[in-house]
Amino acid sequence: MSELALIERIASRTALHPGTALGIGDDAAVLDLGGSAVVTHDMMVEGVHFRRETCGPAELGAKAVAVNLSDLAAMGVEPVAVVVGLGLPAGYTDSGMADALSGGIEDMARAHAVTVAGGDVTASPVLVIGVTAIGRPYEGVAPVRRSGGRAGDLLCVTGRLGGSAAGLALLDDPLSPIDASLRDALVEAHLRPLPRVAAGRALAAGGARAMMDLSDGLLLDAARLGRASGLRARIERDRVPVAEGVGAVAAALGREAAVMAATGGEDYELLAAVPPGRLAGIRATLDLPLTVVGMLVEGEPGADLRDAAGETVHVDSPGWTHDV
Amino acid sequence: MSELALIERIASRTALHPGTALGIGDDAAVLDLGGSAVVTHDMMVEGVHFRRETCGPAELGAKAVAVNLSDLAAMGVEPVAVVVGLGLPAGYTDSGMADALSGGIEDMARAHAVTVAGGDVTASPVLVIGVTAIGRPYEGVAPVRRSGGRAGDLLCVTGRLGGSAAGLALLDDPLSPIDASLRDALVEAHLRPLPRVAAGRALAAGGARAMMDLSDGLLLDAARLGRASGLRARIERDRVPVAEGVGAVAAALGREAAVMAATGGEDYELLAAVPPGRLAGIRATLDLPLTVVGMLVEGEPGADLRDAAGETVHVDSPGWTHDV
Repeated sequence: MSELALIERIASRTALHPGTALGIGDDAAVLDLGGSAVVTHDMMVEGVHFRRETCGPAELGAKAVAVNLSDLAAMGVEPVAVVVGLGLPAGYTDSGMADALSGGIEDMARAHAVTVAGGDVTASPVLVIGVTAIGRPYEGVAPVRRSGGRAGDLLCVTGRLGGSAAGLALLDDPLSPIDASLRDALVEAHLRPLPRVAAGRALAAGGARAMMDLSDGLLLDAARLGRASGLRARIERDRVPVAEGVGAVAAALGREAAVMAATGGEDYELLAAVPPGRLAGIRATLDLPLTVVGMLVEGEPGADLRDAAGETVHVDSPGWTHDV
Repeated sequence: MSELALIERIASRTALHPGTALGIGDDAAVLDLGGSAVVTHDMMVEGVHFRRETCGPAELGAKAVAVNLSDLAAMGVEPVAVVVGLGLPAGYTDSGMADALSGGIEDMARAHAVTVAGGDVTASPVLVIGVTAIGRPYEGVAPVRRSGGRAGDLLCVTGRLGGSAAGLALLDDPLSPIDASLRDALVEAHLRPLPRVAAGRALAAGGARAMMDLSDGLLLDAARLGRASGLRARIERDRVPVAEGVGAVAAALGREAAVMAATGGEDYELLAAVPPGRLAGIRATLDLPLTVVGMLVEGEPGADLRDAAGETVHVDSPGWTHDV
């Protein structure tokens, strides 16, 4: 059973009790506690999501918070607090590493006026950090789900893509020939992703009908948004905004830059389905680029990547898992 | 740095942003999301909190949820939802174990009308389960903190103590001479603790001034409640309600039953500081025994265990950690 199959199995037999407006299956759950609470959880495990040799403790703490705030951003809601579970290997608490780890957690939380409200610290044979982020809707702005897209909606992404994947490739192969400042920027994109909280709010307030964050690669995540909306996400390769330096890394790897940008994971930019008439209004309130990369269309739910001639571009893997 | 020291260090530099009514340091945090949200998190790691040989997957899933619901019970609030992070070793998702694990999670949640609202499933070299529980105050009942006790309050515990520690001892040494039905009950107490949700509500509504759940042993936890309230928790050894069968296990181990009950961990009963005038009223609304085990008094904040003559009883360890 794959992890996704297990999640679907858990979801299928989960009872939704009073107080739950939205359960398993979106970027976050929505609870009714008088006001609405929006809740999400991600766990990062040493050797699976990071290696201690390439990801320092401050980066790890900040990233574990950032990826959860990114899930709240993908609902267009305001982050309020995080609770953090830390499993620390022997010796970790006696070193400066635990201090740096907790510093990274607090720094990322503080940058978004989010409280570290509690959690648990325990021994563990490997370093584990699980973060639960809790938010609330901005006044007058309903949380945006993955499932609200309609045929004809433009698929838009914030920022530029592929930087994190290129940064990871550089960490894996430090000898790759690339300019030092570009290398630093790409490694930073991988180790210190920024949650798009303000952009999520602007997109939700501006009329985005469906939204999610890009954790596993544009093509794979677009397929998820497409399936949730019952539509096909058509992505145009030549419109994908490629982060600076990705071209050089892709060339060194013998890969195509646009495909690397369309399938690389962990950019934590936002993907939104926007009615064409709302695009200009949203762009006017955003502090970063919003690029139209395709459209939602009728057809088999999922996603495909097309070239300028309208032909499907074959990719070896659409992203970090294989469940498209 | 101990785990507790690390938590205190994290707490000391944590900023409390708007929306947070109560941060690190109690059984759960309290957020203001329109209504109040009460949030807690506990992480269980294989080899640290359980062994796969003695704790089956269904028991593990149920217990991980139960210990978090117990933290909400200790605030006297209503549990609404849990989100769950699962780190699963290779092969686990392909076996029936993941199914049993998720079944145990859902069963415990369903028993308390709690929704499994989301979470994360990932690979991990060891089995890890982190649960975040989210609740809301019952109407007209404020969350009860550890710090509200006053001198003269009676210290009361629900149920009977020591069963979980005795059950763990039996799992560690299956040859211990004890009646089979008693053995089963004690092992069950260890593997399948029940969160005292209804009792927590009754205690909070009935006027308990301070409360917490007993996870690390009465003496150690009473010291925490005492310190939070700035008072000394005086526990009388001969009043401690000892669970059935603990006497036989204690005898086999060469230990005193009452001391085993006063220092054994993971009973997940509730400890409350109750004004004497409120005791009868609370008992009338409880569906399980409530035993007076001592009193909060002026003195050095902490706890001690006394015999019938008023002499301090020396214990090798007051509970599961050494931070009294």
